Amino acid sequence: MGEAPRLTHLRADGSAYMVDVSAKDVTARSATARGRVDLSGEAVAALRDGTVPKGDALGVARIAGIQAAKRTPDLVPLCHPVAIHGVEVDLEVDDGGVEITATVRTADRTGIEMEALTCVSVAGLALVDMIKAVDRFAVIGGIRVVAKSGGRSGDWVRPE
Amino acid sequence: MGEAPRLTHLRADGSAYMVDVSAKDVTARSATARGRVDLSGEAVAALRDGTVPKGDALGVARIAGIQAAKRTPDLVPLCHPVAIHGVEVDLEVDDGGVEITATVRTADRTGIEMEALTCVSVAGLALVDMIKAVDRFAVIGGIRVVAKSGGRSGDWVRPE
Amino acid sequence: MGEAPRLTHLRADGSAYMVDVSAKDVTARSATARGRVDLSGEAVAALRDGTVPKGDALGVARIAGIQAAKRTPDLVPLCHPVAIHGVEVDLEVDDGGVEITATVRTADRTGIEMEALTCVSVAGLALVDMIKAVDRFAVIGGIRVVAKSGGRSGDWVRPE
Amino acid sequence: MGEAPRLTHLRADGSAYMVDVSAKDVTARSATARGRVDLSGEAVAALRDGTVPKGDALGVARIAGIQAAKRTPDLVPLCHPVAIHGVEVDLEVDDGGVEITATVRTADRTGIEMEALTCVSVAGLALVDMIKAVDRFAVIGGIRVVAKSGGRSGDWVRPE
Amino acid sequence: MGEAPRLTHLRADGSAYMVDVSAKDVTARSATARGRVDLSGEAVAALRDGTVPKGDALGVARIAGIQAAKRTPDLVPLCHPVAIHGVEVDLEVDDGGVEITATVRTADRTGIEMEALTCVSVAGLALVDMIKAVDRFAVIGGIRVVAKSGGRSGDWVRPE
Amino acid sequence: MGEAPRLTHLRADGSAYMVDVSAKDVTARSATARGRVDLSGEAVAALRDGTVPKGDALGVARIAGIQAAKRTPDLVPLCHPVAIHGVEVDLEVDDGGVEITATVRTADRTGIEMEALTCVSVAGLALVDMIKAVDRFAVIGGIRVVAKSGGRSGDWVRPE
Repeated sequence: MGEAPRLTHLRADGSAYMVDVSAKDVTARSATARGRVDLSGEAVAALRDGTVPKGDALGVARIAGIQAAKRTPDLVPLCHPVAIHGVEVDLEVDDGGVEITATVRTADRTGIEMEALTCVSVAGLALVDMIKAVDRFAVIGGIRVVAKSGGRSGDWVRPE
Repeated sequence: MGEAPRLTHLRADGSAYMVDVSAKDVTARSATARGRVDLSGEAVAALRDGTVPKGDALGVARIAGIQAAKRTPDLVPLCHPVAIHGVEVDLEVDDGGVEITATVRTADRTGIEMEALTCVSVAGLALVDMIKAVDRFAVIGGIRVVAKSGGRSGDWVRPE
Repeated sequence: MGEAPRLTHLRADGSAYMVDVSAKDVTARSATARGRVDLSGEAVAALRDGTVPKGDALGVARIAGIQAAKRTPDLVPLCHPVAIHGVEVDLEVDDGGVEITATVRTADRTGIEMEALTCVSVAGLALVDMIKAVDRFAVIGGIRVVAKSGGRSGDWVRPE
Repeated sequence: MGEAPRLTHLRADGSAYMVDVSAKDVTARSATARGRVDLSGEAVAALRDGTVPKGDALGVARIAGIQAAKRTPDLVPLCHPVAIHGVEVDLEVDDGGVEITATVRTADRTGIEMEALTCVSVAGLALVDMIKAVDRFAVIGGIRVVAKSGGRSGDWVRPE
Repeated sequence: MGEAPRLTHLRADGSAYMVDVSAKDVTARSATARGRVDLSGEAVAALRDGTVPKGDALGVARIAGIQAAKRTPDLVPLCHPVAIHGVEVDLEVDDGGVEITATVRTADRTGIEMEALTCVSVAGLALVDMIKAVDRFAVIGGIRVVAKSGGRSGDWVRPE
Repeated sequence: MGEAPRLTHLRADGSAYMVDVSAKDVTARSATARGRVDLSGEAVAALRDGTVPKGDALGVARIAGIQAAKRTPDLVPLCHPVAIHGVEVDLEVDDGGVEITATVRTADRTGIEMEALTCVSVAGLALVDMIKAVDRFAVIGGIRVVAKSGGRSGDWVRPE
């Protein structure tokens, strides 16, 4: 992450480009991201009681996240297309909202942190859409990579 | 936001559905959302110096956000398709990261808070993708609606 | 549906084109389509017991159908883009499989039978995907428009 | 297809997820699906005479099917993205309608039955769209996998 | 097209944005674009004889163009979503290649020149894809708006 | 490119299909395409001065091109999906307009000329969209493959 590799990656005119990953190895890789949606007590109660007006909010958010993971290269302009091998999304309701954790797996030339982050973000957006008639103050936050494995940099767990 | 309208909206079996908005008026509507990406000092310096390895990070994030606003109904399962009339995205670099503000406008039967939130979220994801070789600890957060106008509920500004 | 209007619609060389609907009125329209997935007794039992290996099959099928309704003009080449106002999908498990009914609403210049049919078809496809580890003999069938309202031809119910 | 593998695949809370296929072998795989569109005699005549008002109905249906096969993971929520190697779609007009057969090929870790089924379904939808001004009673049915090869379960032909 | 309106449209920092069209009138609008694909004599002969290896090249190009017109706002980042009312694509084979003409219609707040240009461009790309096994020297060119009607600027025909 | 291979590729009824590439080798491949947008002197000046009303025209065109390269199989009906490894887009402003050059890389079973051509075409379309308020006479042209490497046919440079 020093000065040299960055300068070699930067194009002469500073313009955006999609980095060539042809020379990278195909290895099994996974990434886990987390985030949360802060909600009112009324919204948490509606989630727990299954009385969210638009229907099964957690189920919809989970599917939205999985589908968004597949669409990451369409959303993030310089992201490489990656063939995703598996996705799991956990949505845990607590007293202050919903904690979202997503793990994405592949065997490819480039990491899939962006897929995991996109999965969490869009699951959060879908949850806000489902609950917004009950709570217009919902906040999505803390979206970050918490662990990754595989690739040149090997296993990594975010110190928290 | 009382009990009665919610119960009438909920289907008998609690299953998800897209609410019928045919009876709502077409009015000029806008929504503004905010969020931010927390970054290391090194990453902030790279943004300010224009030395981000993958190129023009702020420009790419802005375009990603505008395009994502248009794709909101594709990402958020129960969102109605809305013909967007205008989008503006501001990315302000400060010492701790980048503050993102997006305003989306339309004249339609339903609000566009979700479009504004999706715009901010995906701009944030694209920014993290651009900068992740420099800062693997980036966190996206504080994504929320801060103001809206038009529609039955009229103008609203989030008290902060 | 006589000879004359068809001949005026046909291009001289018989090539495909998207019919101009500018002159049609904007009216409230709805369409209801039905279809079913024939399944084995084992698969029906798994749906009823909630033991489908890949998870909540009916919930996933419902969301897939709603999202596909929105993507109809992307899938059906000569279909006009229509702003959908509401979608409801019912999945009823019986001893021989699952009956799927979808109602789609809009206020536009052209009907939305194709959106209702696409919704039912893709809900059926998603259901087959969820259950295929249990039943590789699933058959999707009987996909048809059963009722429509609005537009020049007015209300119509399929005689069955 | 016994109880044990299903239980190990099912998540503790029964929620939907995309199964991890990393451990599966990359092998050449193909799947063939069939289905048909039942049509009136008038519609069959229009297809045979090339007088369908919107143009070349069979050609449009074929292209729609091929493109839909590529978009399967976008439509079917828990489907893995698969790099398709080839697609063939046959549309055979008979006195009662059109028989649709699609064969899809790949070399990947997971089967492509869903791609073949999606191809047939969307070819059927596009055909209905082309012909609906002539026949509003069209029915799409009999959509099923008729053969597959490759993968752990090897070659398989549906007994009919 | 003077200096004043441009300066008011330009944001202070020169960053890209989607112009707000809320104040523009909804009027019937159409745009016609043209372009051509230059081909070898062998390729022209294959088109005329119907012996292009991958199949019906002109039919595929026409469908590709119509579908691309619908996807314009997804491809052109700052383009407004517009509900297209009709599309016609003409492909005329001459001794030097294929002349492509597309007319797109709508009734909306903003013009659809970009939809017509996108239709011609992608029809050209699809044609090159169909014929590239026969002619690897194909060139797509002359893509331009030749006429438009409706909107504030009224009818306009390109002087040629 | 003789008669024999073409005849074996053609289906009996001449209908379109996606050629099976399963038997082709996975090799590193690249393709470079070029094209240009002819512009008025006023438009060239606006690009050079950074006073294009809608913002950073060259940056937006570059991103549009990169994203379109990834979406090629969605736009070009019979194109195989290919996992792109890298994309670079150069936009060079000269006195008559903008010269666009794109290089796309992969390691797959089939070439990526179509991805490079699509990248150039859509970059051109996005540029026209950005500048059309200044110059309604813009023409996109000269879109062609100029070099490719890898695959059965090996390295190739277009003689010009």
